[in-house]
Amino acid sequence: CYSVPDRGSFPGMDALLARVVVPLPTYETRDKAPPPPESNSVEFMHFYRSLEKEDKVDFLTKLSEDYGVDHKNLSELAVKLLDTQIRDLATILQVEDRLRYSLTPRYKQLLGHISRVEGGVKFLVDLRADLLEIIASKASESPHIRDLNGTLKSMLSEWFSVGLLRLERITWMSPCEILQKISHCTAGSVETLTEHGPSARYEAVHPVRNWSDLKRRVGPYRRCYAFTHAAMPGEPLVVLHVALTEDISDNIQSIVREFATLDSEEDVNKINAAIFYSISSTQAGLQGVELGNYLIKRVVRELQRQRGWRVLRHGWRAVSEFPHVSQFSSLSPIPGFSSWLQGLLSQYRKEGRGLDLLSEAEWREVERATGSPPGTPALDALRRLLGTGEWTRSERLCGVLEPVLMRLCAWYLYGEKRRGYALNPVANFHLQNGATMWRLNWRADSSPRGVANSCGIMVNYRYFLSETPRNGAAYLQNKVVSASEQVTGLVSQFQKNSKL
Amino acid sequence: CYSVPDRGSFPGMDALLARVVVPLPTYETRDKAPPPPESNSVEFMHFYRSLEKEDKVDFLTKLSEDYGVDHKNLSELAVKLLDTQIRDLATILQVEDRLRYSLTPRYKQLLGHISRVEGGVKFLVDLRADLLEIIASKASESPHIRDLNGTLKSMLSEWFSVGLLRLERITWMSPCEILQKISHCTAGSVETLTEHGPSARYEAVHPVRNWSDLKRRVGPYRRCYAFTHAAMPGEPLVVLHVALTEDISDNIQSIVREFATLDSEEDVNKINAAIFYSISSTQAGLQGVELGNYLIKRVVRELQRQRGWRVLRHGWRAVSEFPHVSQFSSLSPIPGFSSWLQGLLSQYRKEGRGLDLLSEAEWREVERATGSPPGTPALDALRRLLGTGEWTRSERLCGVLEPVLMRLCAWYLYGEKRRGYALNPVANFHLQNGATMWRLNWRADSSPRGVANSCGIMVNYRYFLSETPRNGAAYLQNKVVSASEQVTGLVSQFQKNSKL
Amino acid sequence: CYSVPDRGSFPGMDALLARVVVPLPTYETRDKAPPPPESNSVEFMHFYRSLEKEDKVDFLTKLSEDYGVDHKNLSELAVKLLDTQIRDLATILQVEDRLRYSLTPRYKQLLGHISRVEGGVKFLVDLRADLLEIIASKASESPHIRDLNGTLKSMLSEWFSVGLLRLERITWMSPCEILQKISHCTAGSVETLTEHGPSARYEAVHPVRNWSDLKRRVGPYRRCYAFTHAAMPGEPLVVLHVALTEDISDNIQSIVREFATLDSEEDVNKINAAIFYSISSTQAGLQGVELGNYLIKRVVRELQRQRGWRVLRHGWRAVSEFPHVSQFSSLSPIPGFSSWLQGLLSQYRKEGRGLDLLSEAEWREVERATGSPPGTPALDALRRLLGTGEWTRSERLCGVLEPVLMRLCAWYLYGEKRRGYALNPVANFHLQNGATMWRLNWRADSSPRGVANSCGIMVNYRYFLSETPRNGAAYLQNKVVSASEQVTGLVSQFQKNSKL
Amino acid sequence: CYSVPDRGSFPGMDALLARVVVPLPTYETRDKAPPPPESNSVEFMHFYRSLEKEDKVDFLTKLSEDYGVDHKNLSELAVKLLDTQIRDLATILQVEDRLRYSLTPRYKQLLGHISRVEGGVKFLVDLRADLLEIIASKASESPHIRDLNGTLKSMLSEWFSVGLLRLERITWMSPCEILQKISHCTAGSVETLTEHGPSARYEAVHPVRNWSDLKRRVGPYRRCYAFTHAAMPGEPLVVLHVALTEDISDNIQSIVREFATLDSEEDVNKINAAIFYSISSTQAGLQGVELGNYLIKRVVRELQRQRGWRVLRHGWRAVSEFPHVSQFSSLSPIPGFSSWLQGLLSQYRKEGRGLDLLSEAEWREVERATGSPPGTPALDALRRLLGTGEWTRSERLCGVLEPVLMRLCAWYLYGEKRRGYALNPVANFHLQNGATMWRLNWRADSSPRGVANSCGIMVNYRYFLSETPRNGAAYLQNKVVSASEQVTGLVSQFQKNSKL
Repeated sequence: CYSVPDRGSFPGMDALLARVVVPLPTYETRDKAPPPPESNSVEFMHFYRSLEKEDKVDFLTKLSEDYGVDHKNLSELAVKLLDTQIRDLATILQVEDRLRYSLTPRYKQLLGHISRVEGGVKFLVDLRADLLEIIASKASESPHIRDLNGTLKSMLSEWFSVGLLRLERITWMSPCEILQKISHCTAGSVETLTEHGPSARYEAVHPVRNWSDLKRRVGPYRRCYAFTHAAMPGEPLVVLHVALTEDISDNIQSIVREFATLDSEEDVNKINAAIFYSISSTQAGLQGVELGNYLIKRVVRELQRQRGWRVLRHGWRAVSEFPHVSQFSSLSPIPGFSSWLQGLLSQYRKEGRGLDLLSEAEWREVERATGSPPGTPALDALRRLLGTGEWTRSERLCGVLEPVLMRLCAWYLYGEKRRGYALNPVANFHLQNGATMWRLNWRADSSPRGVANSCGIMVNYRYFLSETPRNGAAYLQNKVVSASEQVTGLVSQFQKNSKL
Repeated sequence: CYSVPDRGSFPGMDALLARVVVPLPTYETRDKAPPPPESNSVEFMHFYRSLEKEDKVDFLTKLSEDYGVDHKNLSELAVKLLDTQIRDLATILQVEDRLRYSLTPRYKQLLGHISRVEGGVKFLVDLRADLLEIIASKASESPHIRDLNGTLKSMLSEWFSVGLLRLERITWMSPCEILQKISHCTAGSVETLTEHGPSARYEAVHPVRNWSDLKRRVGPYRRCYAFTHAAMPGEPLVVLHVALTEDISDNIQSIVREFATLDSEEDVNKINAAIFYSISSTQAGLQGVELGNYLIKRVVRELQRQRGWRVLRHGWRAVSEFPHVSQFSSLSPIPGFSSWLQGLLSQYRKEGRGLDLLSEAEWREVERATGSPPGTPALDALRRLLGTGEWTRSERLCGVLEPVLMRLCAWYLYGEKRRGYALNPVANFHLQNGATMWRLNWRADSSPRGVANSCGIMVNYRYFLSETPRNGAAYLQNKVVSASEQVTGLVSQFQKNSKL
Repeated sequence: CYSVPDRGSFPGMDALLARVVVPLPTYETRDKAPPPPESNSVEFMHFYRSLEKEDKVDFLTKLSEDYGVDHKNLSELAVKLLDTQIRDLATILQVEDRLRYSLTPRYKQLLGHISRVEGGVKFLVDLRADLLEIIASKASESPHIRDLNGTLKSMLSEWFSVGLLRLERITWMSPCEILQKISHCTAGSVETLTEHGPSARYEAVHPVRNWSDLKRRVGPYRRCYAFTHAAMPGEPLVVLHVALTEDISDNIQSIVREFATLDSEEDVNKINAAIFYSISSTQAGLQGVELGNYLIKRVVRELQRQRGWRVLRHGWRAVSEFPHVSQFSSLSPIPGFSSWLQGLLSQYRKEGRGLDLLSEAEWREVERATGSPPGTPALDALRRLLGTGEWTRSERLCGVLEPVLMRLCAWYLYGEKRRGYALNPVANFHLQNGATMWRLNWRADSSPRGVANSCGIMVNYRYFLSETPRNGAAYLQNKVVSASEQVTGLVSQFQKNSKL
Repeated sequence: CYSVPDRGSFPGMDALLARVVVPLPTYETRDKAPPPPESNSVEFMHFYRSLEKEDKVDFLTKLSEDYGVDHKNLSELAVKLLDTQIRDLATILQVEDRLRYSLTPRYKQLLGHISRVEGGVKFLVDLRADLLEIIASKASESPHIRDLNGTLKSMLSEWFSVGLLRLERITWMSPCEILQKISHCTAGSVETLTEHGPSARYEAVHPVRNWSDLKRRVGPYRRCYAFTHAAMPGEPLVVLHVALTEDISDNIQSIVREFATLDSEEDVNKINAAIFYSISSTQAGLQGVELGNYLIKRVVRELQRQRGWRVLRHGWRAVSEFPHVSQFSSLSPIPGFSSWLQGLLSQYRKEGRGLDLLSEAEWREVERATGSPPGTPALDALRRLLGTGEWTRSERLCGVLEPVLMRLCAWYLYGEKRRGYALNPVANFHLQNGATMWRLNWRADSSPRGVANSCGIMVNYRYFLSETPRNGAAYLQNKVVSASEQVTGLVSQFQKNSKL
């Protein structure tokens, strides 16, 4: 019922699957069974890659349905397990182990073999990206497809567990191969919690435009770190850009367009804060495999490390860098704020409650600045202004709108939820990591994009290192958001002024 | 009943375990649960390392017994599974997934977290070595300990799956750090099939003695390859030594003591064969995790690769090396032959059948050469001679014994079995890989050790590349040994002459 | 009389020079004298760098005049030498050695010390670039400045002698630092023989425009080599771009705009020729220090090397690449041809001999194609057409002009001389190296720049390896140009048709 | 008259020289002349290498005599120079430049070309080692040979000038290739001032015996640095071993036999002093080319560097290491003290002044300890004891001899001179560098070798960084030795007690 019945299967699909997805060995021979020939994996990979999009849906559906768990065998074991409950522990343990084995989908074995072939891990990461898209686009709603996705995700989580990741610092001396990928992925995305689905990503703040931009990001007072993985050499998986500053930055242009210090030596005494101003993931297929948060933690440790020497690949290296760095914070975009705001304005207008959003005095200012009559016309003028970004050109309007937008934005970040967690994916990401929603910054991103996405507002999620574990747990377990007084103050103002 | 009741537990053991082995998250929150603090893992590692041997047994027993699977919960799910059999597939799949999750021992989560800590993977590899020793030495016979061992093995198998391994060629330009480890491990061992247990290893043929020996092993006409793993940097896991020769070598001294070509350039036209003359593993805790056979396969591919260029870490490198290499073979020791032979002689003597082993003519020769009267005295003389290695000093005796020892050895390798597989662990290893038992070589290892272990005989397991998959499968599934005419001829002679 | 009298010296100049350019030690103590403090060199470098352009002229003039050879002491030694002619050889040798020492300018010692300071060699290379510009621009005509230039050049020649240069292959895995420099310098220049002066360079054919262009130049079927020097790490000095092709290329776009093979593996059987399509130097101050020719020779050797293995920095590497490459050639621009041609047309017009350049039939064609009346109007029309590059848009005009421009160009390259050597600096460069002027290619560079510089014509200088030493010597000693029949044929046509 | 007349020249020598040592180009064509074919250099190198020792003497004599300066041409230029003295400066400068050119020995050009061939620089370094041996052994006393040596030395000095040297830190991660060479050369030598001749070297204190010794020298609390040169890749030229200690070491065994900290992390707070405990050169042919002193200075700078980051080959590296290191000192052997002492005793005995060396009380002690009668027998007993090292076994004798040997040794180091400079080559080396003779250490080297060479005494030459330039100059120019009060005190005691 989940497959697409009205079109014939791609020729050879069934034959291929039957040939390459060999049965699991019996429980007794599971350790001794010779692995199937590597050509099985290679054949599977070639075949899959040659398929069109729709055929891929067919193919994966077939694979997940026909080569999953042997339900019958499983039931029998369950019966047996229940029978043995009276027996000795050794027997119980053994039946449990058999049960565990019988829960292995037949295709899991194939996926494991594929991971061992050259380029196999990358293939599986890309296959998972396909699965996520199939699920998100509802191209298939088969529970088996979801099962396959779950199996693959748990395998990838094993392979990409942090012990196997390698932290690499990217510098201007790194291979061009790597830097080009960094350059591309800064127009990329960061993964967020699984439940938000694969589309919940945010674009990096500012795409890299040229050699100078790129050089700036790896030059003095900047750090660029990436996780790479042995099975995907030369592929950065998550990339974190850090600025080393005197104070916690409140403006992104001062970071990415600051070329004055490009050729200077770093003065360690001027470095008090580490600002994470961009984090992006490059592999859609690793969604839900936690990498970004681990990368932030690793980098914090790297920047903090005590003096000492460690053996690295090419000799010894001093690992203590910055004795004075005591402040860690992101400078993060707020994707979705503008469209949320437009939605809110529309809805309020429809409901005839548009005037509730601003105070009377504020409406007076808006009317004066836009020259529109009070009431709905002023509301419409406001919507238009926000839609075009035109308001930024008038000092006066900026002055009027600053308190309004700041408190709305604070609410959007702090108060808007989805299943109890922050609606905004970037907020959700940092709150999970234990950060505090610390400071909203007005005129923090004056680029057209920044204005269009979030009215130029950006936010610092600050990492108070001694509190992050506790904060993270409180957020994840009890949905408690840690926020500063500035943020909660703005939220209060919002609650006072706006009758949401 | 498995623990050691008469001595108090190491103080703090229970408290520590209760604290660091946190309960599994519920099935619903399993993906969202924040990981426990890293300090749990670190604390566990420090504690364990500080324990004496006996306390380790206690500790691991406790861990495996008290923090395993929740049997009760499991039973309930099993009941539920059986109840749902009439329901829709989606529900079944979900219950199965819950069942699968409930089969996770609580300690497994901790092991996973440890693997993410710096040095954690190495810690777990060493922990497994302890477990294997506990099991082998029967220091504990708890089925839980065996379960823990199985869980850990399957985790290690994931982490050390071939896609995550990195083939490194070791040269004289490699870091001393690595070469020293190679130098030590050539006095090491190779893992063999699990069922033979952790003690079934073979010593490398010739330990490296000094700079020159080592340089010889990485110089011209030699290759040294190792697998390394991202999570254990700088640690070669398995090491394979290859000699590039004109013909398939029949003598180990001609490989390890050949210094004539040490400073010459390789003449590619003189290279027709690749001889694997030493393979050794360095990590006892990876026993049963197949690495050696993969290493051989990877190296064969490396040596055979088509012309072309590949991007490597430090630039491009030509990857085709040897157009003429068409013969691949090991030159392997035969550990255990001498002791098997002594055992045989003892047993035959006891059973009064000693004379059955040699033909009458052969006995005449032995009597003449040893000056002993016929019958038991001759048998005893023979035993003594073989025990001391003295026979090698007499040309005459050598001539007499060659056919005898060769056919006995052929039988030992080909005919002696354990559960249907070759008793000799090296034979078993290569036969599993699909090699053919190709040629027994007389006077192949004239070192005292070679004489003591296997009367100086060595054997080539030859890799006919087009046949190895078939051979391997036939051996593993049907216990069929692929052998050359020389070997089967010797076996026939044995069967004709000896009445075993 | 060489200094600039009407403006006061930069303050402190004299004092500084007196302080840092210490006197030479006496002949007797020359080996034992302690070196002056490094701070002298550093002070000199800082001071010089802080000067404005005109002050630099002053400064260098002063340095060269006041801190040169001690002429008086020298004369005395010359007298002594003449006196000793009757004495024994040992004495003569000693006086000669003293004479040699007394010919050392005092500033030479300082230059030597500067070279030992970090960044010193680069400083001196840049200082020499200043000297060359001063001489070329006649900012100073002091013979001492020329002497200083000569001294510095001979020192640089020692330091940049080929034994100290390191050939590096640049790939996409090379540091971005290097690739960016390559990218910039391909808009650079190649040094030519000294007598042509520092302005006689040619621009690289096609500047690199972006990542793709750059990646193309280091990808499959391309090689990029550079010389680097230990004293200027990370600075490529001369860069050679090579295309590996089936035939000798006759078109530059087919090399730099060919992206089809960018992701393919090289097929060694399709590689028969190595085309040097760009060579550029990055250091103006190394003018006259031969690097480019050595680079070509080294690269030829690299591409030709016999099979074998060599120890490199990171292990062993196969050094034989291309068994089939038997053809080596440049594909070179012809800078200056268009302006030479315009000059020729102007001059002929002035002298009323304009019609001599084309045959009558050719003039008919030009008249028809341009619609201009015969005689001077046709000549003017031709000049205008060539000046704008407009002619390339008319198939007809192209047809008419091809034979004309090809024979004029052949003459320009082959027949136009300066002090007996080829006027065209690129021709001069390759002829010195022993290349043969092999083939002129019509429509070889259809870029606006190619049309503007040389009417789209390019030329192959071919390296017949067995003949290059002889050719080079014949050219340098006897000014004989080695040329193919195509070229000499075109030259004959020119001589028949044009009455120069 | 300098050549060896009674044996025929090696066949082909003359012909070869005539062929490969081509005449210098004329002054006018010196920049444009094509270089002779590389094969000349290669032929020369092969030929020379094939010669026996004696033939080499012949060959080099011939080369230096027959292919030196053109004396006649030189005289003519000298006459011309004197004639031009009345003329303008430009002319004078030009004649001087011609004169300079005419002073170039013909063979110098060949040596230059050889340096450009692969392996050429190493060839010339080895050639110079031959020359030094010929001169030292008086195998030839030709002034031309000395001239050739001088020319080659000045060329090598250019090529090995510090700007071209590369400081490399050697660690356990360095290639085995390098570490093996380090291991060998620690049984090597350090260069000293030229006038002491090539034999004036000192053996490194303790030869490296095995992996552990070597690992100790590159492990924690130790540093090992070497200069390498681009033209001789993989060859360390001078090697400096440094121990990082709490106090200035007074004992060599505590450095080279201290394995306790081998696996510990360095505690930077325990590092107050850097002790140079071994410096050795590996290239006999670079004698007189200052490398050792530059290496010490570079390493001091490396250890002292201010915080900051520098781009290195493989990324960025922190370059500040040790904030607390404020003491720099050698711990040096005193080669030659024992033999000087034996010579002194012999001479005094001969002159009947033996008793002058010790005070009466001291003689009493010696008599008592040795049981010999006073006078000459006691003197002889003392000589014998010192000759065998037997005295070290008697606590009593040690007590008696300590003050005696310490003051004699202080005198040997401080007072014994050769041409006004310290006779002891190690002292001379460090005093030139500006070090202070700081402390004599009793029982500093208790190895048999240490006792045999210098009665177990070692000395610290301390580098007070602010004073080293002044000290070095004072020593080199005025022969003033900087010494501590301990040393001068011992010297006074010597002068008071001994009537030398």
